[in-house]
Amino acid sequence: MNAHAKAQILLREDADGIATLTLNRPEARNPLSEAMLAALAETLAAIANDRSIRAVVLAAAGPVFSAGHDLKEMSARRADPDRGRAYFADILGRCSGAMQQITALPQPVIAAVEGTATAAGCQLVASCDLAVAGEAARFCTPGVHIGLFCSTPMVALSRNLSAKHAMEMLLLGEMVPAQEAARMGLVNRVVPAGEALDEARRLAAVIASKSAATVKVGKRAFYEQREMGLKAAYDNASAVMVENMLARGAEEGIGAFMEKRQPVWES
Amino acid sequence: MNAHAKAQILLREDADGIATLTLNRPEARNPLSEAMLAALAETLAAIANDRSIRAVVLAAAGPVFSAGHDLKEMSARRADPDRGRAYFADILGRCSGAMQQITALPQPVIAAVEGTATAAGCQLVASCDLAVAGEAARFCTPGVHIGLFCSTPMVALSRNLSAKHAMEMLLLGEMVPAQEAARMGLVNRVVPAGEALDEARRLAAVIASKSAATVKVGKRAFYEQREMGLKAAYDNASAVMVENMLARGAEEGIGAFMEKRQPVWES
Amino acid sequence: MNAHAKAQILLREDADGIATLTLNRPEARNPLSEAMLAALAETLAAIANDRSIRAVVLAAAGPVFSAGHDLKEMSARRADPDRGRAYFADILGRCSGAMQQITALPQPVIAAVEGTATAAGCQLVASCDLAVAGEAARFCTPGVHIGLFCSTPMVALSRNLSAKHAMEMLLLGEMVPAQEAARMGLVNRVVPAGEALDEARRLAAVIASKSAATVKVGKRAFYEQREMGLKAAYDNASAVMVENMLARGAEEGIGAFMEKRQPVWES
Repeated sequence: MNAHAKAQILLREDADGIATLTLNRPEARNPLSEAMLAALAETLAAIANDRSIRAVVLAAAGPVFSAGHDLKEMSARRADPDRGRAYFADILGRCSGAMQQITALPQPVIAAVEGTATAAGCQLVASCDLAVAGEAARFCTPGVHIGLFCSTPMVALSRNLSAKHAMEMLLLGEMVPAQEAARMGLVNRVVPAGEALDEARRLAAVIASKSAATVKVGKRAFYEQREMGLKAAYDNASAVMVENMLARGAEEGIGAFMEKRQPVWES
Repeated sequence: MNAHAKAQILLREDADGIATLTLNRPEARNPLSEAMLAALAETLAAIANDRSIRAVVLAAAGPVFSAGHDLKEMSARRADPDRGRAYFADILGRCSGAMQQITALPQPVIAAVEGTATAAGCQLVASCDLAVAGEAARFCTPGVHIGLFCSTPMVALSRNLSAKHAMEMLLLGEMVPAQEAARMGLVNRVVPAGEALDEARRLAAVIASKSAATVKVGKRAFYEQREMGLKAAYDNASAVMVENMLARGAEEGIGAFMEKRQPVWES
Repeated sequence: MNAHAKAQILLREDADGIATLTLNRPEARNPLSEAMLAALAETLAAIANDRSIRAVVLAAAGPVFSAGHDLKEMSARRADPDRGRAYFADILGRCSGAMQQITALPQPVIAAVEGTATAAGCQLVASCDLAVAGEAARFCTPGVHIGLFCSTPMVALSRNLSAKHAMEMLLLGEMVPAQEAARMGLVNRVVPAGEALDEARRLAAVIASKSAATVKVGKRAFYEQREMGLKAAYDNASAVMVENMLARGAEEGIGAFMEKRQPVWES
């Protein structure tokens, strides 16, 4: 896979500190294939070190957001001497890795979903920090229909939805409309069909107007502290906030607030 | 307690791969008495090893789903030399054990609730994988009214509801109508009064049409990974999914999907 | 700071077993200043040992519930030789300590919110066991606007709200209306503007009518078990419930229930 082909599979467009990534294999329903996962991993790694980018929007071309893993590609490896074991472990490791890259990315990532997001495609939405859905968008973890439970998607799903809602999606594999997904906490907002990208960019622009250093510190602290008990979480968050208070962003931001002027962020 | 008496307390009816269990002491409000807990434990243990059963529906006879522990039975043991300590520890251990048997059961369990489910009866609903309520159903953890906080029910409750919702039920002990319970995440769906059993069976039939081996693997992975941090959860779920991919269910299911035919499950 | 000044900053009014605490620096938007945190810590410590108090209502004077930390007070310490590091660590430790005092308090604490609760003021609401909001109340974690991410508020927020809802508040810093806060689980109930205190006191009166010993045991068990895995949580809650069953409150409460009379609590 050369760089050009990757560029075609996953589009990246930067504007005003916002990188918009677009899954771009609509004819194949934007599968999280080997190539797509490689493109996502490489692009997210580049963005992590790109100080010009302050927020990321994740969108998709065509009527399907993403149908998840590429079952043809995976099934072909059943012909391997180990029946595909090594390959399956590798591809699932790459997929889980890309999801955790989103969580670990300094910049917030906002999914903009039109059409259907299924299996690992639904996981991708759940893994983003925020998500906006067009009202015709639908969400599904249908692995149970084909004998392959959506076990890795459940990790992201069960960290966003209540237990019974997550179990309902996983056990029944039924399509969940956007409004229901919002009620369950899978997406933040539902907008008229076709407007998810605009709204996601609007939220990204709000975030891009803040101190990137502060947002980075806060996002990391969020995912760290939620795995801790209450006391450890407070100790961790307090230490983070002391450093944040001593950094330039807070000095400028608080100064501007008290002087009733607009802050000017260094980063 | 002989087998016949147990059969009367807890009915089991199997059809089309679905076991319907019915709490059947309506005149006593279906208490989770010593006998009922023994019947539940024995029946769930039998179902765990019964490959003909692919989903379980848990219902109740009469106007009360379950009023929880049998307070008369428990209070009688205050006359024991140890004031009941050993007995209370034993009965609460049995009750908590039955709840965890539901979680550990290979087959999904769907509560079908009409009438009121209170205290350990409410816990029973919270412990099921899915729950359907008739619109006249009500839920309550009223222990606080009688000086006995619903501490074991809170374990199941607080793993389904948000903190303030769980605390509201526990501290106030007020009746929560079905629609409110659905909003809080305690039940998945509300149907017209009297239709909870039909709807629960409809969901059970959907699940029973899937690969039982896959559902078993997925259910277990769900409860395992939710107690882990994000990275450990992904490592665990990825390993589970590799094995799932190599098992016959996924091979048949994915094959059928790609060949556009109905899958035929071995188990 | 003498006792009189503290009394002015934080009012305490006891009636019918309910202590109503009122943040009382409305002209400064009830900041969680050094003095306010000291008053809160001292008052909560006193209440923890006051057996006449069975529930606490936390309200605020003026149009703002609380605007959180006192930025002027904090910024002044940038002139310290260590640029404020020791002071910031101390004040954040005091603030996190007061929040955990609420969680650890034997008596339930109910927030009564009119107007806006922002930053650590919003954290204060999230930290209470229950919360009632007037319909004009609003909630916000706006630190991101001034370069100081609401990292300690996120600890309380993310233990009440789903991940995407918490992230939305933290990353965007937008005002959340009362009804939306209720939908997210940040508050239990929304009442007509101006009636939050009455409703909070009504809930407090319900709780005050119960056995204080039982409520204390249950509240502590709730926060303990929610940090445990399922099995450990059940073992812990069962042990708690055995002791609860053997205590006088349950004996009286269950006895009264079976004899169809009103219980008389010792404590």
